Amino acid sequence: ITFMLKNIIKYVFYFIGAIMVLDLFDINTTSILATAGIGGLAIGFGAQSLVKDIITGFFILFEDQFSVGDYISVGNLEGIVEELGVRTTKLRDFSGELHIIPNSKVEIVTNKTRGAMRALVTISVAYEEDIDRVIDVLDRVCNEIRESNKNVVEGPTILGISNLGESGIDLTIVAKTNPMEQWSVERQLRKNIKEAFDRENIEIPYSRLVLYNEESLRGDK
Amino acid sequence: ITFMLKNIIKYVFYFIGAIMVLDLFDINTTSILATAGIGGLAIGFGAQSLVKDIITGFFILFEDQFSVGDYISVGNLEGIVEELGVRTTKLRDFSGELHIIPNSKVEIVTNKTRGAMRALVTISVAYEEDIDRVIDVLDRVCNEIRESNKNVVEGPTILGISNLGESGIDLTIVAKTNPMEQWSVERQLRKNIKEAFDRENIEIPYSRLVLYNEESLRGDK
Amino acid sequence: ITFMLKNIIKYVFYFIGAIMVLDLFDINTTSILATAGIGGLAIGFGAQSLVKDIITGFFILFEDQFSVGDYISVGNLEGIVEELGVRTTKLRDFSGELHIIPNSKVEIVTNKTRGAMRALVTISVAYEEDIDRVIDVLDRVCNEIRESNKNVVEGPTILGISNLGESGIDLTIVAKTNPMEQWSVERQLRKNIKEAFDRENIEIPYSRLVLYNEESLRGDK
Amino acid sequence: ITFMLKNIIKYVFYFIGAIMVLDLFDINTTSILATAGIGGLAIGFGAQSLVKDIITGFFILFEDQFSVGDYISVGNLEGIVEELGVRTTKLRDFSGELHIIPNSKVEIVTNKTRGAMRALVTISVAYEEDIDRVIDVLDRVCNEIRESNKNVVEGPTILGISNLGESGIDLTIVAKTNPMEQWSVERQLRKNIKEAFDRENIEIPYSRLVLYNEESLRGDK
Amino acid sequence: ITFMLKNIIKYVFYFIGAIMVLDLFDINTTSILATAGIGGLAIGFGAQSLVKDIITGFFILFEDQFSVGDYISVGNLEGIVEELGVRTTKLRDFSGELHIIPNSKVEIVTNKTRGAMRALVTISVAYEEDIDRVIDVLDRVCNEIRESNKNVVEGPTILGISNLGESGIDLTIVAKTNPMEQWSVERQLRKNIKEAFDRENIEIPYSRLVLYNEESLRGDK
Amino acid sequence: ITFMLKNIIKYVFYFIGAIMVLDLFDINTTSILATAGIGGLAIGFGAQSLVKDIITGFFILFEDQFSVGDYISVGNLEGIVEELGVRTTKLRDFSGELHIIPNSKVEIVTNKTRGAMRALVTISVAYEEDIDRVIDVLDRVCNEIRESNKNVVEGPTILGISNLGESGIDLTIVAKTNPMEQWSVERQLRKNIKEAFDRENIEIPYSRLVLYNEESLRGDK
Amino acid sequence: ITFMLKNIIKYVFYFIGAIMVLDLFDINTTSILATAGIGGLAIGFGAQSLVKDIITGFFILFEDQFSVGDYISVGNLEGIVEELGVRTTKLRDFSGELHIIPNSKVEIVTNKTRGAMRALVTISVAYEEDIDRVIDVLDRVCNEIRESNKNVVEGPTILGISNLGESGIDLTIVAKTNPMEQWSVERQLRKNIKEAFDRENIEIPYSRLVLYNEESLRGDK
Repeated sequence: ITFMLKNIIKYVFYFIGAIMVLDLFDINTTSILATAGIGGLAIGFGAQSLVKDIITGFFILFEDQFSVGDYISVGNLEGIVEELGVRTTKLRDFSGELHIIPNSKVEIVTNKTRGAMRALVTISVAYEEDIDRVIDVLDRVCNEIRESNKNVVEGPTILGISNLGESGIDLTIVAKTNPMEQWSVERQLRKNIKEAFDRENIEIPYSRLVLYNEESLRGDK
Repeated sequence: ITFMLKNIIKYVFYFIGAIMVLDLFDINTTSILATAGIGGLAIGFGAQSLVKDIITGFFILFEDQFSVGDYISVGNLEGIVEELGVRTTKLRDFSGELHIIPNSKVEIVTNKTRGAMRALVTISVAYEEDIDRVIDVLDRVCNEIRESNKNVVEGPTILGISNLGESGIDLTIVAKTNPMEQWSVERQLRKNIKEAFDRENIEIPYSRLVLYNEESLRGDK
Repeated sequence: ITFMLKNIIKYVFYFIGAIMVLDLFDINTTSILATAGIGGLAIGFGAQSLVKDIITGFFILFEDQFSVGDYISVGNLEGIVEELGVRTTKLRDFSGELHIIPNSKVEIVTNKTRGAMRALVTISVAYEEDIDRVIDVLDRVCNEIRESNKNVVEGPTILGISNLGESGIDLTIVAKTNPMEQWSVERQLRKNIKEAFDRENIEIPYSRLVLYNEESLRGDK
Repeated sequence: ITFMLKNIIKYVFYFIGAIMVLDLFDINTTSILATAGIGGLAIGFGAQSLVKDIITGFFILFEDQFSVGDYISVGNLEGIVEELGVRTTKLRDFSGELHIIPNSKVEIVTNKTRGAMRALVTISVAYEEDIDRVIDVLDRVCNEIRESNKNVVEGPTILGISNLGESGIDLTIVAKTNPMEQWSVERQLRKNIKEAFDRENIEIPYSRLVLYNEESLRGDK
Repeated sequence: ITFMLKNIIKYVFYFIGAIMVLDLFDINTTSILATAGIGGLAIGFGAQSLVKDIITGFFILFEDQFSVGDYISVGNLEGIVEELGVRTTKLRDFSGELHIIPNSKVEIVTNKTRGAMRALVTISVAYEEDIDRVIDVLDRVCNEIRESNKNVVEGPTILGISNLGESGIDLTIVAKTNPMEQWSVERQLRKNIKEAFDRENIEIPYSRLVLYNEESLRGDK
Repeated sequence: ITFMLKNIIKYVFYFIGAIMVLDLFDINTTSILATAGIGGLAIGFGAQSLVKDIITGFFILFEDQFSVGDYISVGNLEGIVEELGVRTTKLRDFSGELHIIPNSKVEIVTNKTRGAMRALVTISVAYEEDIDRVIDVLDRVCNEIRESNKNVVEGPTILGISNLGESGIDLTIVAKTNPMEQWSVERQLRKNIKEAFDRENIEIPYSRLVLYNEESLRGDK
Repeated sequence: ITFMLKNIIKYVFYFIGAIMVLDLFDINTTSILATAGIGGLAIGFGAQSLVKDIITGFFILFEDQFSVGDYISVGNLEGIVEELGVRTTKLRDFSGELHIIPNSKVEIVTNKTRGAMRALVTISVAYEEDIDRVIDVLDRVCNEIRESNKNVVEGPTILGISNLGESGIDLTIVAKTNPMEQWSVERQLRKNIKEAFDRENIEIPYSRLVLYNEESLRGDK
């Protein structure tokens, strides 16, 4: 890019020089300047987004917003940064797709590899279950994972009842993990909870429905 | 940033000085100025958002809209303010993600750590329940929490029936809590209510459905 | 703000004075002016939204669109006006959150504390109920509330059948109340209606479903 | 507003006069004008929306798009026009809320008090009903209302079958009414139809479901 | 509007004349022009949408995009054109509402009274029905309508199976009709099809559901 | 349009001539030019979209993006191109509606009459069916259609299982057809598959539901 | 395009030449230049998007963002690149449709033919199944496909439990495949899993529902 900038500056100086020479010979250069002005305006508008690409790219580097290998999300695209160029940023999605984003479109960045990430699992149990017993079982699963899984930074802990839903009570468990490992920790949590529930005969609820019979209702009155 | 500003001003004065010197030697500087004008316009457009970033950043600081450690929401992003820079604001989401937002995108700010926050829990009970008894039970739970939980600033109080829904009557309970503690108070409220309902045999309703039998309907006519 | 304005005007006059002095000594000031022009343009664009904030803030005050203590909604944010500043308006949401909105974003304002507000309750009853009897019961509830509740300005009155829905007939009741009291009136209406319905054996309907049996259908043919 | 305009014009002439006086004394006024130009540009941008408000307000009055007391909708806000000012229009919503809309936001206006309005009621009947008999019953209801209700301008007429839906046949009835009376006519239509259907034993359908039994299906093969 | 234009032009010429007279007396008019320029710019921005209204209005007339009495849709508004003015177009909706649209908002127009319109009816039948027999019955209905209904331009024809849905097979019937008559033709088609199906014992399907019993499933293994 | 352009150019030259004549008589024309400049700016903004219409229209023709008779989609409008004018494009929708679109709104064009189109049919079968047998049956249907239908360019082929859904296995069949014939091929495919399934006793599934009985669940523990 | 550029430059030089000649004969050319300026501005605005098309097209080629034959997605359009022109890019959709996109609309590009793509299959099993056995069966299917399918780059592996849903446990399997082959690999995975599940008597769950009987609930209390 430095090469390109040099080129641009060179031609700009040639142009200024030419105008000054013509001027010395008393040739009115206003008309040339006016023409150049209109042309320059057209190109200026066109180049505007290029200038913006380069300026934003500079800020990304300078402020270290993200670097190659980070997992980031920009707008509604996500991926691992594969290349951080002067004009574009290239993200490799988990699906294998390569997103090519002009830097000027990189406004709000979410970097998912700076610091520990959160693994969050929500478990539903039926209203009939004894909550204290369920929490007990979940606690044991949490302890187990805290010790066995090296990617866990801060123990899985049970937050409590996050919702009294239509089909059961929602319990939320969170953990802090090394970046990019939050999904595998979540999957392990789900698997171990399912197995513990199977052992303890705690059921994860399907949708439930209470049936009324119209005739019996009518009979009540 | 002051360093950067000084730099900019220094070069601007150099430029003005150079033009004035050339002028004294009777060299026509109009062409140089015109060229600089077009270049300046291009950069000006590009730098426009930078200027806006800095101005908005200044206002955030000056008006104390939020400071490091506050939990704020901007647009559809949320997080604890980790850094409040000249050009960008960094938010750490509960999920561990780091949102990097240019200040010019920080237009409407919602600060969630100024003053007491509200904990709100909505409980559904079936239409068959005796409401006064339900309110009685909830009242006792509210009193209990008011005394035991130090994060509660005001109430919890039962607002009343907020909805006559498809599957039951919705009762709303609100409390004022210390900032960032509203969720834990909500979770405790839910747990205590569930336990009181279990003791008192009040049921939280699953979806209900009244069945009609087509043949019996036809028989009616 | 007057202080700020004075400051700005002062520096503008200093600048004009300096230019005029230089001009008297026959120094060509065009180059300085051109430079100031480009800088001024950049700042002008940046300051544009500030100017808009102040102008809109002035109009809000001048036209008395809302004042501190009013409950207003702007865009999709709601809250009680806590501060009405030169540049920003601060709203305190019921949830305790503090919304800080630049005045230039305050375009369409909805003020909910100017004049009587409407309380609106929609009650569903099954198609099997006798509507005239239901309306009778609701009428008695309305009279009761009209006399006992001082926040009710007008009515409550039964508008009639607002919908013939999937699970029953929707009846709408409206009342005019003192501002900010509409929700408590609605809650009282719901509670009293539920109690009257319990006394009169009128049922609020759950979802209903008519079952056909495939074999009996086939048998029909 | 005329007062304000006079004021503006007065100051503009003062300014021109001052410049001309300075000019007579051979003082170069270019620098003052340039400064005024930049300031004027900033204010001009800010004032732009004010100018637009006034121009649009003028057109609303001049073209009589709506007047105080009309029920109009602008964007997604509705209400009765309470004040039609130079800069803003105030709408009083049925909910009692006061919408304050800058005239420049009043682009597409829908006026609901110019000419007769349409009342539209859609009635569902089960597929098992005899349609001709249903239409007969509805016809009698329409005649009844045409004679008794003075707000009806053009008789309720049955358009026909507007949909063959999942839970029954939808029949549509329309009438022309005096403005603002369409909702009360719709409510009366619904009530009278329900009563006529009760008398004639026509059922408004709940959701229907045909049940297949998996074993009997398997037995078929 | 011609009157207004004349007025504008008259004042413009007065202004030019005044400037030229002042110029003859050697009064520097640059300052007046500069002031007028700023004012003109402000008004120019404000008047911009007016100019656009008039230009678009001219094109609508000149290209005969629609005329008074046509049924058109613009954006998400529909209605019969009641007035086609220099600045606004007025549409009368079927609901009786009057939409007043500035011509500059009339960008993409859909005219529904140019040429024959399509009536489209989709009929669902259960998977158990014999399709060829159903098509036979529908064919007879189509023939019947082709002969009796004068608004039908091109016969109703059965396109075929447009969807194999969750609750049955969707058959699509289309016809070309005189403009504005497509809805009445659709309603007649629906009525005649329903009657033919009643005669022929073809059922329009309610939602269907195949029930499995969990115990019998377990027994299978 | 050439006529219009000539006209514009003619008047522009008249204007330039007049200015030059006035100039020869030493009349200062700056004021006239300034006035013309403001007026021209206003008209220029207004005419901007006209210029854009013409330029885009030129590119559509020049690049042969579509021609009269093609079936295209622009934005969310579809239709057969009926007229491709200098300023607008007219599309005739299948519904008979005439869409009039200014060329400047024709940005991304989708042309559906260039090359063979794809017919795509998705068939659901219950999980209980033997997939290989189903594929066999579908294969025979595909062969049949490949031979009998002249609009098929590239044989219908079974892609495989595109989804394991809630109510069954989705099988996808695709074919290449002559443009505008894809829908009739799809309809024929659906009809033939339905008939083959009827012959072979393969069922297209309704929604399925496995029922658990709460008491039997409780009994299990 | 080079031809066009040459043409433009040629005419620009003619214009400059003409102005300079007129200037030599002492004819004031300011008026001509001003007129040309206004005209040039209008055309400049119109041509702006053309300039942007060409610049973006240049960057696509220069940075090799995609080339003819790649499968890319731009905005919400997808297709194989058929032509990469100076002004437009043409995509051939799988449906056979030809999307013609001006290059200036090609901002964020997703290229799906650079590197291995991911095949992802999510399988639901009922909560009653033994997960370890299910994972065992899936493992064998994965091995089978790894060996037999040459398009698989990196073996299908079972990620684990990605969700504890309403109707069962979701297990996710991923593989890396050659570009454009991900869908066929997914289809083969689905088919082989279905067959293995049939052999092993593992059921893919339909929706499940636990039924409560209202009377038995009431009896409990």
